[in-house]
Amino acid sequence: MSADLSTVHLIERHRATLDKALEAVRTREYWSPYPEQLKAYPEAEAGKAAFEALLGHQFELDQPGTDEWTGSERSPYGMELGVRYPHPDPDRLLPAMRAALPAWRDAGPEARAMVCLEILSRINARTHEFAHAVMHTSGQAFTMAFQAGGPHAQDRALEAVTYAYAEQIRVPDSAQWIKPQGKREPLDLRKTFTAVPRGVGLVIGCNTFPTWNGYPGLFASLATGNAVLVKPHPQAVLPLALTVAIAREVLAEAGFPSDLVCLAVERPGEGLAKTLALRPEVRVIDYTGSTGFGDWLEANARQAQVFTEKAGVNSVVVDSTGDYRGMLANLAFSLSLYSGQMCTTPQNLLIPRDGIETDAGPKSYDEVVADLAAAVDGLLGDDTRANALLGALVSPEVKGRLEAAPDLGEVALASRSLKHPDFPHAVVRTPAVIKLDAAKPDAEAAFMAECFGPVSFAVAVDSTADAVQLLRRTIRDKGAMTVGGYTTSPEVERQLEEACWEESAQLSLNLTGGVYVNQTAAFSDFHGSGGNPAANAALCDGAFVASRFRTVEVRRPA
Amino acid sequence: MSADLSTVHLIERHRATLDKALEAVRTREYWSPYPEQLKAYPEAEAGKAAFEALLGHQFELDQPGTDEWTGSERSPYGMELGVRYPHPDPDRLLPAMRAALPAWRDAGPEARAMVCLEILSRINARTHEFAHAVMHTSGQAFTMAFQAGGPHAQDRALEAVTYAYAEQIRVPDSAQWIKPQGKREPLDLRKTFTAVPRGVGLVIGCNTFPTWNGYPGLFASLATGNAVLVKPHPQAVLPLALTVAIAREVLAEAGFPSDLVCLAVERPGEGLAKTLALRPEVRVIDYTGSTGFGDWLEANARQAQVFTEKAGVNSVVVDSTGDYRGMLANLAFSLSLYSGQMCTTPQNLLIPRDGIETDAGPKSYDEVVADLAAAVDGLLGDDTRANALLGALVSPEVKGRLEAAPDLGEVALASRSLKHPDFPHAVVRTPAVIKLDAAKPDAEAAFMAECFGPVSFAVAVDSTADAVQLLRRTIRDKGAMTVGGYTTSPEVERQLEEACWEESAQLSLNLTGGVYVNQTAAFSDFHGSGGNPAANAALCDGAFVASRFRTVEVRRPA
Repeated sequence: MSADLSTVHLIERHRATLDKALEAVRTREYWSPYPEQLKAYPEAEAGKAAFEALLGHQFELDQPGTDEWTGSERSPYGMELGVRYPHPDPDRLLPAMRAALPAWRDAGPEARAMVCLEILSRINARTHEFAHAVMHTSGQAFTMAFQAGGPHAQDRALEAVTYAYAEQIRVPDSAQWIKPQGKREPLDLRKTFTAVPRGVGLVIGCNTFPTWNGYPGLFASLATGNAVLVKPHPQAVLPLALTVAIAREVLAEAGFPSDLVCLAVERPGEGLAKTLALRPEVRVIDYTGSTGFGDWLEANARQAQVFTEKAGVNSVVVDSTGDYRGMLANLAFSLSLYSGQMCTTPQNLLIPRDGIETDAGPKSYDEVVADLAAAVDGLLGDDTRANALLGALVSPEVKGRLEAAPDLGEVALASRSLKHPDFPHAVVRTPAVIKLDAAKPDAEAAFMAECFGPVSFAVAVDSTADAVQLLRRTIRDKGAMTVGGYTTSPEVERQLEEACWEESAQLSLNLTGGVYVNQTAAFSDFHGSGGNPAANAALCDGAFVASRFRTVEVRRPA
Repeated sequence: MSADLSTVHLIERHRATLDKALEAVRTREYWSPYPEQLKAYPEAEAGKAAFEALLGHQFELDQPGTDEWTGSERSPYGMELGVRYPHPDPDRLLPAMRAALPAWRDAGPEARAMVCLEILSRINARTHEFAHAVMHTSGQAFTMAFQAGGPHAQDRALEAVTYAYAEQIRVPDSAQWIKPQGKREPLDLRKTFTAVPRGVGLVIGCNTFPTWNGYPGLFASLATGNAVLVKPHPQAVLPLALTVAIAREVLAEAGFPSDLVCLAVERPGEGLAKTLALRPEVRVIDYTGSTGFGDWLEANARQAQVFTEKAGVNSVVVDSTGDYRGMLANLAFSLSLYSGQMCTTPQNLLIPRDGIETDAGPKSYDEVVADLAAAVDGLLGDDTRANALLGALVSPEVKGRLEAAPDLGEVALASRSLKHPDFPHAVVRTPAVIKLDAAKPDAEAAFMAECFGPVSFAVAVDSTADAVQLLRRTIRDKGAMTVGGYTTSPEVERQLEEACWEESAQLSLNLTGGVYVNQTAAFSDFHGSGGNPAANAALCDGAFVASRFRTVEVRRPA
């Protein structure tokens, strides 16, 4: 790589993309700079070979303060990755990262954005390699790992860079302030305004979406002038290690300290995130994971700005539909995709016990549930297609919850085990649907807790009004990343909107085609609202970037 | 008042002002819509009479949930105000406030901004009345109460409304999202985006600047769709009660529930702020006051976004100057204004023990301190002018600290007691300057603690480099709302800038004329940085408004 990474050259290469992104987040119309079609990336074989060459080796990063090498990733598809990564001595690594800050601050918002776009551009060029790394850490099927772990994650990263840049340039670099004083000389000051970083940003990655959930915080912190320490989930290190390596390479080539981006991999059971989160150098934390640790971070990492995405209970209110088949097909896909292991997968389907009106005539509660089960069976009837949709279960915990699900209620759709043609040890399961009655006292304990994985509850409720009440209570008490609704009634639409406005949740209405409640598009859709217990931040808005930096003013007589 | 307060009419009246404010915060050039000259407000007598008519009476607000009447304000100028205010039953008041939210949310960002501007316009028209109310609660001299409590506070309020409006309209009301699907039909969604409030915003006022420090949070929360409950300092209720009354009047006339803005006055010693801050309805808190309670709020009011301005230790580094007289005059004014009872008043003057270079020749440490003392004496030599600058001490605690100051070190300038011509019971004091040597072990305990009031320390340091080190440590450990510096050396300027960039503090360099380190101008200067322990927010930036609301998206097939 002999690229000229001067700021001038980077602006030439990337400024137009940034401008389009700035326009996209303003209009919220469809836009993406990173194609999602596999055929747009011809280097399939090279990418796979690059991934395979990493396995069983030490992942060199040349970062300071490495005291040992560690790594214990095992693919949900069965194989040990065998990659060993640097384990940090925080007392040596964090001061080195802090020392890198002034040069990065002095570069200013535009140069920082351009460096971030160059990083993303190189990540994008290696999307095939990333796809394999995401697949064999998250358990996603290849196409999903390619799209969600590749271009869609890159989109979310660019979106964060875009918001970060826009936020920093709301104040000019300098201003002359001349205040009239009647007949006397005016007061005349020259003022400069500098975006200064908080310090070190810590990104605590998750197992299921290491890049998609990790990139927004990483790039938002970096673009606002912070250094970023990436602490991946111990089972999903590789995609983030590749990311860190590319970031360090670009930073160095552009003349910045590569220690602005470092990796911290923990020994099994070490609990390194807890140690790092309380370090005084760490001033921003981005976390995706369990509610327990997210709440702990919010309560204890008081020296830092803490952005969390935690657990939630997503509901779909089924009131009526003008496209019964479309609704069933859409829901079946939503429940099946990545075996329901998305934070956005619907868990509770709230269905009136007296049934619903549809274009195919009235359907009883039992019919709706049976027809949904049949739709899932139909969708997943072909094993090849099923494997391409489901992927593998990410962890024994998910498998355990799935196996315990039949004890929670009446099984409307039993989970089925599939063989994967290429990976005989992969744990592949179809989703289960369990019937529960909201009126029965013990049912609530089941459906009001997050049951992460391929388990959904068909909850019988007294009426749509009852469903909306339960929806409100679920969002308020448990949080929700997504809410779905099916209705032909403008009045019910309004009730659902009112509920989501008041409880602060993102609502998808009457999805019957190729858009699913569990998918959001960067530059247009918000992921989470930041206003209910599932997450204290949304991807991406001003609040996600505005407190990652501060503006320091220096004023002097002109 | 028979005004037509339809949104159309309000836009006609106020939209141009909002547009100018939007431009002002972008350019940071001088601008203010509210004149600061007393002569711009002819209603001096009527304003005074209106203030006097309030004294000794019950302050009617017609708000729900009032369970008794309370009030114990005593002017720092000596008289009891005798005003009684509604004391709330939170169980009745807060639900009424929440019930007011949907109509306010549905109004949208522009209508909310216009209503806020109408409120400010009516407050502005009553600036004389407010000036007396601020004077007799804070102890500020009349002119300062008029300017800082009137137009300058109104400026800060408008600035907050401006940021709030700008933040909410970054996302469009609706968008059509059309994603190409190759040869298939494109995916086509219609999306709406609604700014939704957090809930009830709680404003916890302070004694010294009830309007200036209270307005930004009040108007930022209101403009972002929240209801606002104002809990004033028990000794500075009247200016905020007037504000609440005007807000309620305008809201009702504009067709909105007046309970969107309510007042909560505590019984003596009740600790009402603590009770209200933990209520689940309260989702935003703005607080100005002691570090102890600010830290408590940040740690305990976890259900709310908490914005705090707490205590800090402000330093001025004196390295050298090209205008010795100007420097002394400027510092003398800064120390004297409102008897040093501003959160922005310099406390520690860091002066090399070997003296400094000036345009009037080299000056030893002792000479600089003596000349500063003489400058203060000169400034305050005339009792009329001194009274007009100093105002009265706000509380017995400030008086106690001033009286204890001589025990802390060598007195370079003794505080002097003045008689006020109109208010014989006012406690009026000139500032004290105490000499301390940073090299002596016991000195640090004195100058590293905030000594709020008319006490400054002339701290002898080894060198300018030593001063910059001490400055950094002071900001990092104790926080600072302001930093000043005097130097003719570009290198020292750069060291001071670097220190303030790294420690996140606002720096004023070489002020020798009519701008003072303790004064900031809305639309141009930031008050605080939000990046050091003195405050977790700055007035005003994107971070001050962005998390007060959330954006809820509803998407449906087009």
